[in-house]
Amino acid sequence: MPKVFVSISMSLDGFIAGPGITAQQPMGEGGERLHDWLFKTRTEADKAIVEETFKAGAVIVGGRTYKIAINDAWEGRSPFDVTSFVLTHEIPAEQVKGFVFVTAGIESILEQAKTAAGEKDVWVMGGADIIQQFIHLKLVDEIQITLVNVLLGKGTLLFEHIAMRQVELERIRIIESAGVTHIKYRIVQ
Amino acid sequence: MPKVFVSISMSLDGFIAGPGITAQQPMGEGGERLHDWLFKTRTEADKAIVEETFKAGAVIVGGRTYKIAINDAWEGRSPFDVTSFVLTHEIPAEQVKGFVFVTAGIESILEQAKTAAGEKDVWVMGGADIIQQFIHLKLVDEIQITLVNVLLGKGTLLFEHIAMRQVELERIRIIESAGVTHIKYRIVQ
Repeated sequence: MPKVFVSISMSLDGFIAGPGITAQQPMGEGGERLHDWLFKTRTEADKAIVEETFKAGAVIVGGRTYKIAINDAWEGRSPFDVTSFVLTHEIPAEQVKGFVFVTAGIESILEQAKTAAGEKDVWVMGGADIIQQFIHLKLVDEIQITLVNVLLGKGTLLFEHIAMRQVELERIRIIESAGVTHIKYRIVQ
Repeated sequence: MPKVFVSISMSLDGFIAGPGITAQQPMGEGGERLHDWLFKTRTEADKAIVEETFKAGAVIVGGRTYKIAINDAWEGRSPFDVTSFVLTHEIPAEQVKGFVFVTAGIESILEQAKTAAGEKDVWVMGGADIIQQFIHLKLVDEIQITLVNVLLGKGTLLFEHIAMRQVELERIRIIESAGVTHIKYRIVQ
Protein backbone atom coordinates (compact mmCIF):
# COMPACT_ATOMS: atom_id res chain seq x y z
CA MET A 1 0.00 0.00 0.00
CA PRO A 2 1.66 3.27 -1.07
CA LYS A 3 2.16 5.82 1.70
CA VAL A 4 1.98 9.58 2.03
CA PHE A 5 5.07 10.78 3.83
CA VAL A 6 6.85 13.88 5.05
CA SER A 7 10.67 13.98 5.16
CA ILE A 8 12.25 17.13 6.48
CA SER A 9 15.11 18.57 8.54
CA MET A 10 14.17 20.21 11.82
CA SER A 11 16.20 21.84 14.59
CA LEU A 12 15.73 20.52 18.14
CA ASP A 13 13.60 23.61 18.80
CA GLY A 14 11.29 22.72 15.93
CA PHE A 15 12.33 25.05 13.12
CA ILE A 16 12.61 24.01 9.45
CA ALA A 17 13.93 27.39 8.29
CA GLY A 18 15.32 30.57 9.80
CA PRO A 19 13.49 33.92 9.66
CA GLY A 20 13.48 36.14 6.58
CA ILE A 21 12.96 33.63 3.78
CA THR A 22 13.65 35.07 0.32
CA ALA A 23 14.46 33.58 -3.09
CA GLN A 24 18.13 34.36 -2.43
CA GLN A 25 17.94 32.86 1.05
CA PRO A 26 15.31 30.12 0.75
CA MET A 27 16.18 28.56 4.12
CA GLY A 28 15.99 31.94 5.87
CA GLU A 29 18.67 33.55 7.98
CA GLY A 30 20.87 30.85 9.48
CA GLY A 31 18.58 28.14 8.14
CA GLU A 32 21.18 26.59 5.83
CA ARG A 33 22.59 25.07 9.02
CA LEU A 34 19.72 22.56 8.82
CA HIS A 35 21.14 21.21 5.56
CA ASP A 36 24.76 20.78 6.61
CA TRP A 37 24.05 17.05 6.82
CA LEU A 38 23.12 17.10 3.13
CA PHE A 39 25.98 19.20 1.85
CA LYS A 40 28.83 19.26 4.36
CA THR A 41 28.89 16.21 6.61
CA ARG A 42 26.97 13.73 4.46
CA THR A 43 27.45 10.10 5.50
CA GLU A 44 26.34 6.85 3.86
CA ALA A 45 23.38 6.78 6.25
CA ASP A 46 22.41 10.30 5.21
CA LYS A 47 22.68 9.34 1.55
CA ALA A 48 20.34 6.40 2.13
CA ILE A 49 17.76 8.75 3.67
CA VAL A 50 17.92 11.03 0.66
CA GLU A 51 17.67 8.10 -1.75
CA GLU A 52 14.67 6.72 0.12
CA THR A 53 12.95 10.11 -0.06
CA PHE A 54 13.62 10.45 -3.77
CA LYS A 55 12.07 7.04 -4.42
CA ALA A 56 8.70 8.76 -4.09
CA GLY A 57 6.47 8.44 -7.14
CA ALA A 58 5.15 12.00 -6.86
CA VAL A 59 5.91 15.13 -4.87
CA ILE A 60 3.54 17.69 -3.38
CA VAL A 61 4.86 21.23 -2.91
CA GLY A 62 3.25 24.30 -1.34
CA GLY A 63 2.70 27.32 -3.58
CA ARG A 64 4.93 29.60 -1.56
CA THR A 65 7.77 27.08 -1.48
CA TYR A 66 7.54 26.72 -5.24
CA LYS A 67 7.62 30.48 -5.81
CA ILE A 68 10.59 30.98 -3.49
CA ALA A 69 12.59 28.07 -4.91
CA ILE A 70 11.87 27.82 -8.61
CA ASN A 71 14.11 30.48 -10.13
CA ASP A 72 17.00 30.52 -7.69
CA ALA A 73 17.37 27.37 -5.59
CA TRP A 74 15.99 25.18 -8.38
CA GLU A 75 17.46 27.27 -11.22
CA GLY A 76 14.26 27.21 -13.23
CA ARG A 77 14.06 23.42 -13.44
CA SER A 78 12.37 20.74 -11.37
CA PRO A 79 14.81 19.11 -8.92
CA PHE A 80 12.61 16.00 -8.92
CA ASP A 81 12.58 13.15 -11.45
CA VAL A 82 8.88 12.57 -10.88
CA THR A 83 5.88 14.82 -11.39
CA SER A 84 5.46 17.43 -8.69
CA PHE A 85 2.12 18.91 -7.78
CA VAL A 86 2.01 22.51 -6.59
CA LEU A 87 -0.90 23.65 -4.43
CA THR A 88 -1.71 27.18 -5.47
CA HIS A 89 -4.49 29.75 -5.66
CA GLU A 90 -3.47 30.89 -9.10
CA ILE A 91 -1.89 28.97 -11.93
CA PRO A 92 1.29 30.82 -12.97
CA ALA A 93 1.54 32.13 -16.53
CA GLU A 94 4.93 30.55 -17.02
CA GLN A 95 4.87 26.82 -16.45
CA VAL A 96 7.90 24.71 -15.74
CA LYS A 97 8.19 21.14 -17.01
CA GLY A 98 7.57 18.54 -14.34
CA PHE A 99 5.18 20.67 -12.30
CA VAL A 100 1.40 20.43 -12.27
CA PHE A 101 -0.48 23.30 -10.64
CA VAL A 102 -3.55 22.49 -8.62
CA THR A 103 -6.07 25.05 -7.41
CA ALA A 104 -8.77 22.62 -6.29
CA GLY A 105 -7.36 22.10 -2.79
CA ILE A 106 -5.72 19.48 -0.62
CA GLU A 107 -7.90 16.45 -1.34
CA SER A 108 -7.67 17.01 -5.07
CA ILE A 109 -3.90 17.49 -5.13
CA LEU A 110 -3.46 14.32 -3.10
CA GLU A 111 -5.68 12.32 -5.46
CA GLN A 112 -3.72 13.56 -8.45
CA ALA A 113 -0.39 12.84 -6.78
CA LYS A 114 -1.47 9.35 -5.75
CA THR A 115 -2.59 8.57 -9.28
CA ALA A 116 0.72 9.81 -10.67
CA ALA A 117 2.69 7.82 -8.09
CA GLY A 118 0.92 4.55 -8.80
CA GLU A 119 2.51 1.88 -6.62
CA LYS A 120 4.99 4.35 -5.17
CA ASP A 121 4.74 6.71 -2.19
CA VAL A 122 3.79 10.39 -2.24
CA TRP A 123 6.18 12.86 -0.65
CA VAL A 124 4.69 16.00 0.87
CA MET A 125 7.82 18.09 0.62
CA GLY A 126 6.74 21.30 2.33
CA GLY A 127 6.68 24.11 3.39
CA ALA A 128 5.38 23.96 6.92
CA ASP A 129 1.87 25.18 5.96
CA ILE A 130 1.06 22.38 3.58
CA ILE A 131 2.56 19.76 5.91
CA GLN A 132 0.42 21.09 8.77
CA GLN A 133 -2.70 20.95 6.61
CA PHE A 134 -1.95 17.39 5.56
CA ILE A 135 -1.34 16.25 9.14
CA HIS A 136 -4.40 18.08 10.39
CA LEU A 137 -6.56 16.34 7.79
CA LYS A 138 -5.04 12.96 8.73
CA LEU A 139 -3.61 12.46 5.26
CA VAL A 140 0.00 11.68 6.28
CA ASP A 141 1.11 8.13 7.09
CA GLU A 142 4.74 8.70 8.06
CA ILE A 143 7.02 11.55 9.12
CA GLN A 144 10.76 11.22 8.68
CA ILE A 145 12.36 13.92 10.81
CA THR A 146 16.03 14.66 10.46
CA LEU A 147 16.59 16.17 13.89
CA VAL A 148 19.56 18.51 13.59
CA ASN A 149 21.92 19.10 16.54
CA VAL A 150 21.15 22.80 16.78
CA LEU A 151 18.74 25.28 18.33
CA LEU A 152 17.88 27.84 15.64
CA GLY A 153 16.06 30.15 18.06
CA LYS A 154 13.69 31.59 15.46
CA GLY A 155 12.18 30.96 12.06
CA THR A 156 9.43 28.72 10.71
CA LEU A 157 8.12 26.09 13.13
CA LEU A 158 7.26 22.79 11.45
CA PHE A 159 4.30 22.07 13.66
CA GLU A 160 3.03 25.55 14.58
CA HIS A 161 -0.55 25.23 13.40
CA ILE A 162 -1.61 21.61 13.65
CA ALA A 163 -3.24 22.82 16.88
CA MET A 164 -6.64 21.18 16.86
CA ARG A 165 -5.82 17.83 18.39
CA GLN A 166 -3.14 15.59 19.87
CA VAL A 167 -1.53 13.30 17.32
CA GLU A 168 -0.10 9.98 18.47
CA LEU A 169 3.08 8.75 16.83
CA GLU A 170 4.83 5.42 16.66
CA ARG A 171 8.59 5.55 16.24
CA ILE A 172 9.47 3.04 13.53
CA ARG A 173 13.13 3.76 12.85
CA ILE A 174 16.00 5.75 14.27
CA ILE A 175 19.37 6.30 12.61
CA GLU A 176 22.20 8.23 14.25
CA SER A 177 24.38 10.12 11.83
CA ALA A 178 26.93 12.93 11.96
CA GLY A 179 25.28 15.88 13.65
CA VAL A 180 21.74 14.64 13.03
CA THR A 181 19.34 11.93 14.14
CA HIS A 182 16.94 10.55 11.53
CA ILE A 183 13.75 9.49 13.28
CA LYS A 184 10.85 8.01 11.36
CA TYR A 185 7.39 8.01 12.89
CA ARG A 186 4.15 6.43 11.79
CA ILE A 187 1.15 8.63 12.52
CA VAL A 188 -1.47 6.74 14.53
CA GLN A 189 -4.74 8.05 13.07
CA MET B 1 33.83 18.88 36.88
CA PRO B 2 30.17 19.08 37.98
CA LYS B 3 27.72 20.00 35.25
CA VAL B 4 24.58 22.07 34.96
CA PHE B 5 21.93 20.07 33.15
CA VAL B 6 18.34 20.13 31.97
CA SER B 7 16.32 16.91 31.82
CA ILE B 8 12.78 17.20 30.54
CA SER B 9 10.06 15.50 28.48
CA MET B 10 9.10 17.19 25.21
CA SER B 11 6.64 16.33 22.45
CA LEU B 12 7.98 16.12 18.89
CA ASP B 13 6.40 19.53 18.30
CA GLY B 14 8.37 21.02 21.18
CA PHE B 15 5.87 21.27 24.03
CA ILE B 16 6.66 20.43 27.66
CA ALA B 17 3.08 21.02 28.87
CA GLY B 18 -0.37 21.49 27.41
CA PRO B 19 -2.32 24.76 27.61
CA GLY B 20 -4.21 25.85 30.73
CA ILE B 21 -1.74 24.98 33.48
CA THR B 22 -3.30 25.07 36.96
CA ALA B 23 -2.41 23.55 40.35
CA GLN B 24 -4.95 20.79 39.66
CA GLN B 25 -3.61 20.27 36.16
CA PRO B 26 0.11 21.11 36.44
CA MET B 27 0.97 19.61 33.04
CA GLY B 28 -1.85 21.54 31.34
CA GLU B 29 -4.62 20.10 29.22
CA GLY B 30 -3.46 16.82 27.68
CA GLY B 31 0.06 17.41 29.00
CA GLU B 32 0.08 14.34 31.26
CA ARG B 33 0.64 12.41 28.03
CA LEU B 34 4.25 13.58 28.21
CA HIS B 35 4.73 11.62 31.43
CA ASP B 36 3.25 8.29 30.34
CA TRP B 37 6.81 7.00 30.08
CA LEU B 38 7.28 7.77 33.78
CA PHE B 39 4.02 6.37 35.07
CA LYS B 40 2.51 3.98 32.53
CA THR B 41 5.06 2.41 30.22
CA ARG B 42 8.19 2.76 32.36
CA THR B 43 11.06 0.51 31.26
CA GLU B 44 14.42 -0.23 32.87
CA ALA B 45 15.97 2.31 30.51
CA ASP B 46 13.46 4.95 31.62
CA LYS B 47 14.19 4.15 35.24
CA ALA B 48 17.90 4.66 34.65
CA ILE B 49 17.20 8.10 33.16
CA VAL B 50 15.18 9.10 36.22
CA GLU B 51 17.84 7.79 38.58
CA GLU B 52 20.54 9.68 36.70
CA THR B 53 18.51 12.88 36.96
CA PHE B 54 17.92 12.43 40.67
CA LYS B 55 21.65 12.00 41.26
CA ALA B 56 21.89 15.79 41.00
CA GLY B 57 23.32 17.48 44.07
CA ALA B 58 20.94 20.45 43.86
CA VAL B 59 17.84 21.42 41.90
CA ILE B 60 16.84 24.79 40.47
CA VAL B 61 13.13 25.47 40.05
CA GLY B 62 11.29 28.46 38.57
CA GLY B 63 9.01 30.44 40.86
CA ARG B 64 5.89 29.71 38.83
CA THR B 65 6.60 25.97 38.69
CA TYR B 66 7.06 25.94 42.46
CA LYS B 67 3.79 27.79 43.08
CA ILE B 68 1.81 25.53 40.73
CA ALA B 69 3.31 22.30 42.09
CA ILE B 70 3.94 22.72 45.81
CA ASN B 71 0.51 22.13 47.34
CA ASP B 72 -1.03 19.71 44.87
CA ALA B 73 1.46 17.83 42.71
CA TRP B 74 4.08 17.86 45.48
CA GLU B 75 1.55 17.59 48.34
CA GLY B 76 3.26 20.29 50.40
CA ARG B 77 6.64 18.52 50.53
CA SER B 78 9.78 18.64 48.45
CA PRO B 79 9.92 15.76 45.93
CA PHE B 80 13.70 16.05 45.91
CA ASP B 81 16.19 14.57 48.38
CA VAL B 82 18.58 17.46 47.85
CA THR B 83 18.18 21.18 48.42
CA SER B 84 16.14 22.92 45.76
CA PHE B 85 16.57 26.57 44.91
CA VAL B 86 13.51 28.52 43.78
CA LEU B 87 14.01 31.64 41.67
CA THR B 88 11.38 34.12 42.76
CA HIS B 89 10.62 37.82 43.01
CA GLU B 90 9.14 37.48 46.47
CA ILE B 91 10.00 35.06 49.27
CA PRO B 92 6.80 33.27 50.29
CA ALA B 93 5.55 33.67 53.89
CA GLU B 94 5.20 29.95 54.32
CA GLN B 95 8.42 28.10 53.70
CA VAL B 96 8.69 24.42 52.91
CA LYS B 97 11.62 22.33 54.12
CA GLY B 98 14.15 21.57 51.41
CA PHE B 99 13.53 24.75 49.42
CA VAL B 100 15.67 27.88 49.43
CA PHE B 101 14.15 30.98 47.88
CA VAL B 102 16.41 33.24 45.87
CA THR B 103 15.46 36.73 44.72
CA ALA B 104 18.93 37.82 43.61
CA GLY B 105 18.63 36.42 40.07
CA ILE B 106 20.04 33.70 37.84
CA GLU B 107 23.75 34.03 38.54
CA SER B 108 23.17 34.03 42.28
CA ILE B 109 20.83 31.05 42.30
CA LEU B 110 23.32 29.08 40.22
CA GLU B 111 26.18 29.93 42.58
CA GLN B 112 24.16 28.82 45.58
CA ALA B 113 23.03 25.62 43.86
CA LYS B 114 26.61 24.79 42.78
CA THR B 115 27.87 25.29 46.31
CA ALA B 116 25.13 23.05 47.69
CA ALA B 117 25.79 20.39 45.03
CA GLY B 118 29.53 20.23 45.74
CA GLU B 119 31.01 17.53 43.50
CA LYS B 120 27.59 16.70 42.05
CA ASP B 121 25.66 18.17 39.12
CA VAL B 122 22.99 20.86 39.24
CA TRP B 123 19.62 20.10 37.65
CA VAL B 124 17.67 23.03 36.19
CA MET B 125 14.28 21.38 36.45
CA GLY B 126 12.07 23.97 34.81
CA GLY B 127 9.67 25.46 33.78
CA ALA B 128 10.43 26.59 30.29
CA ASP B 129 11.17 30.21 31.27
CA ILE B 130 14.03 29.44 33.63
CA ILE B 131 15.48 26.83 31.23
CA GLN B 132 15.41 29.42 28.42
CA GLN B 133 17.15 31.99 30.61
CA PHE B 134 19.84 29.50 31.60
CA ILE B 135 20.46 28.45 27.99
CA HIS B 136 20.44 32.03 26.79
CA LEU B 137 23.06 32.97 29.40
CA LYS B 138 25.20 29.94 28.38
CA LEU B 139 24.91 28.40 31.82
CA VAL B 140 23.73 24.93 30.76
CA ASP B 141 26.21 22.15 29.90
CA GLU B 142 23.86 19.34 28.89
CA ILE B 143 20.23 18.85 27.85
CA GLN B 144 18.61 15.46 28.26
CA ILE B 145 15.45 15.51 26.15
CA THR B 146 12.94 12.72 26.49
CA LEU B 147 11.33 13.07 23.07
CA VAL B 148 7.79 11.72 23.38
CA ASN B 149 6.05 10.04 20.43
CA VAL B 150 3.25 12.60 20.24
CA LEU B 151 2.35 15.97 18.76
CA LEU B 152 0.61 17.97 21.49
CA GLY B 153 -0.48 20.77 19.14
CA LYS B 154 -0.46 23.50 21.76
CA GLY B 155 0.88 24.41 25.18
CA THR B 156 4.23 25.60 26.52
CA LEU B 157 7.13 25.42 24.07
CA LEU B 158 10.42 24.43 25.70
CA PHE B 159 12.55 26.65 23.51
CA GLU B 160 10.23 29.54 22.65
CA HIS B 161 12.33 32.44 23.86
CA ILE B 162 15.98 31.50 23.56
CA ALA B 163 15.74 33.58 20.37
CA MET B 164 18.90 35.66 20.39
CA ARG B 165 21.34 33.24 18.81
CA GLN B 166 21.87 29.83 17.26
CA VAL B 167 23.03 27.23 19.75
CA GLU B 168 25.14 24.31 18.55
CA LEU B 169 24.58 20.92 20.14
CA GLU B 170 26.56 17.72 20.23
CA ARG B 171 24.52 14.54 20.62
CA ILE B 172 26.26 12.48 23.29
CA ARG B 173 23.77 9.68 23.95
CA ILE B 174 20.58 8.24 22.54
CA ILE B 175 18.40 5.62 24.18
CA GLU B 176 15.27 4.19 22.54
CA SER B 177 12.55 3.25 24.97
CA ALA B 178 8.82 2.50 24.85
CA GLY B 179 7.13 5.47 23.24
CA VAL B 180 10.01 7.86 23.86
CA THR B 181 13.56 8.56 22.74
CA HIS B 182 15.98 9.86 25.34
CA ILE B 183 18.53 12.09 23.60
CA LYS B 184 21.28 13.79 25.53
CA TYR B 185 23.06 16.79 24.03
CA ARG B 186 26.08 18.75 25.13
CA ILE B 187 25.71 22.46 24.46
CA VAL B 188 28.65 23.78 22.45
CA GLN B 189 29.22 27.24 23.97
